Amino acid sequence: MTDLCSLRLNSARNAVEIIDQTLLPHQLEWLALDCLQAYCESISNMRVRGAPLIGITAAFGLATALRNDPSTHGLNAAKGALLATRPTAINLQWALDGVTSHVLPLEQSRRADAAFECACSLREQDIESCSSIGEVGRGILQDLLLDRGSEQLQVMTHCNAGWLATIEWGTALAPIYKVHEAGVPVHVWVSETRPRNQGAFLTAWELQRAGVPHTVVADNSCGHLMQQGMVDCVIVGSDRTAANGDVCNKIGTYLKALSAKANGVPFYTALPVSTIDWCCTTGADIPIEVRDSGELLSIGGMDETDTFRQVRLGGAGSSGHNPAFDITPAELITGLITERGLIEASSTGLSRLRSNR
Amino acid sequence: MTDLCSLRLNSARNAVEIIDQTLLPHQLEWLALDCLQAYCESISNMRVRGAPLIGITAAFGLATALRNDPSTHGLNAAKGALLATRPTAINLQWALDGVTSHVLPLEQSRRADAAFECACSLREQDIESCSSIGEVGRGILQDLLLDRGSEQLQVMTHCNAGWLATIEWGTALAPIYKVHEAGVPVHVWVSETRPRNQGAFLTAWELQRAGVPHTVVADNSCGHLMQQGMVDCVIVGSDRTAANGDVCNKIGTYLKALSAKANGVPFYTALPVSTIDWCCTTGADIPIEVRDSGELLSIGGMDETDTFRQVRLGGAGSSGHNPAFDITPAELITGLITERGLIEASSTGLSRLRSNR
Repeated sequence: MTDLCSLRLNSARNAVEIIDQTLLPHQLEWLALDCLQAYCESISNMRVRGAPLIGITAAFGLATALRNDPSTHGLNAAKGALLATRPTAINLQWALDGVTSHVLPLEQSRRADAAFECACSLREQDIESCSSIGEVGRGILQDLLLDRGSEQLQVMTHCNAGWLATIEWGTALAPIYKVHEAGVPVHVWVSETRPRNQGAFLTAWELQRAGVPHTVVADNSCGHLMQQGMVDCVIVGSDRTAANGDVCNKIGTYLKALSAKANGVPFYTALPVSTIDWCCTTGADIPIEVRDSGELLSIGGMDETDTFRQVRLGGAGSSGHNPAFDITPAELITGLITERGLIEASSTGLSRLRSNR
Repeated sequence: MTDLCSLRLNSARNAVEIIDQTLLPHQLEWLALDCLQAYCESISNMRVRGAPLIGITAAFGLATALRNDPSTHGLNAAKGALLATRPTAINLQWALDGVTSHVLPLEQSRRADAAFECACSLREQDIESCSSIGEVGRGILQDLLLDRGSEQLQVMTHCNAGWLATIEWGTALAPIYKVHEAGVPVHVWVSETRPRNQGAFLTAWELQRAGVPHTVVADNSCGHLMQQGMVDCVIVGSDRTAANGDVCNKIGTYLKALSAKANGVPFYTALPVSTIDWCCTTGADIPIEVRDSGELLSIGGMDETDTFRQVRLGGAGSSGHNPAFDITPAELITGLITERGLIEASSTGLSRLRSNR
């Protein structure tokens, strides 16, 4: 669907390169990851971000670490370091567990290659899952357009849950790309997504490259747009989904869900089944990452000479607090768009999904 | 309560100077306003902002214009120019109508001086009103602290409704200043308030000068803080209040009100009675200003050499939409804190207030 993907194999197919997302939208640069430390730094500093992508990146990181030290001790140490980079997205745990259980029974000499193959197959699976999510969502959006009888579908999203957050397609953006490809007129309200502006910096960039009409708005204006009847539906991603259907996603998601409910706007979460954490009974069990307040109190952009500069916002003396995620209760969610169909956001819906594995 | 106010008379007491709020928090600079055009420019470019303050500034602007042309034609032209600067806050209309009805019956030679005196008395009235709002709000906050039995009161606010938005005290911040002066431990969650960051730039600056503990947060995190029980109440201002108690205030207010309702957090609006527009039956009658999207797509701050720079956020090719206000329905509002007491946000509450004039 695009000439790019967020993480690619190098030409020898034995190492990976990522797009350094902290430089977007101003610069498109590939960064080769060649040691465990580089992987950890890239995930914790959000050069790669998005629950599915950090899971896959971590899997490659583990494979890379095993080349230096394939012992079980080395494996556990590398896994621990990768797990510690970001606490909220469950895909990190999921992907690392997947690789670990695959390579642990093997002889040490075979572990690194097997881990690399395993990471490659997680990468392929993710592309397929996202494409399926896109197909399920496309049907929902097409029905919605018929139902509304309007000329153009107005979809709101938050943060970035596009191909930059996965490998290809994305989760929340996959249905949008699919309807756009199908010729359905669609316009996207891109919520800026403070403090790191993934909406304005990443989603707008993705949509522009794909030729999808879109408009950037302040997070604050999302309620107003819904009040004014300017939004047909909201689709967001998920960083971790509890067994009762509560969704943990980028900070600010909850406010959009409240507003959608109050204004009768369908609110969907698009997610691969890998974001479901069966150990979390409700959203209250999910750890919320609190990041450095510098992310809130300064920002980077291009000055008048097209030089990238970081500027301090606000006075020097005020401090900030920067929680990175919030919990949207299941009752505010119209449905979960997964690679296995549209699922009710409830214990019933999810346990049915689990038993149909 | 402070050594400063937002608008002062010059030493000869025949002209006014304003704090240029577009330079805060980085620079505190006074700007003398000496002609109608300077007044209009200052209001539309938000060098002065906040419903009460722009009303009073406009009154002085009309007085200044009458010095050049005291004819009825001149008066109407100046009034029209001032009214056109900002569409949403009703105080502009209210203050200009007040001055007009005061000077219209007078001989032309006396109009300018009378208008100036009238503007001075609106300024004095505003200080008194805000102090009274502060007293009413102080009582509410002290009761709330007793009720909670906590050690420190956690108040959330949005945008800037402090003395920078009025003359002294402010509206939403007046109760906070009053409890702080009374020795009650209070901490303020300052919502950044994108796109113009009046929370991070102005409210945080005010609170810091006054020694009130506070923390800046992204607008997106306000729902999460309430979910976590970290907010005892929300107090915001109002740019225009409809006769049924609906409140039009800075974009994003509505999302905070929805979240407060969902989490059982009291949500107050603090306003002088002058923001009530009896001609607006509901909030739907209030015009919402849409400002230039450049406010959203670029921002100013201090670079590493402490030089102020404007930087472009996001890619060059994406456009934005920038509505400046939204409507909070009366049913989400716990009460209106006015200079005449705590009023129920409803047609009944407001009509009782009106009949007790």
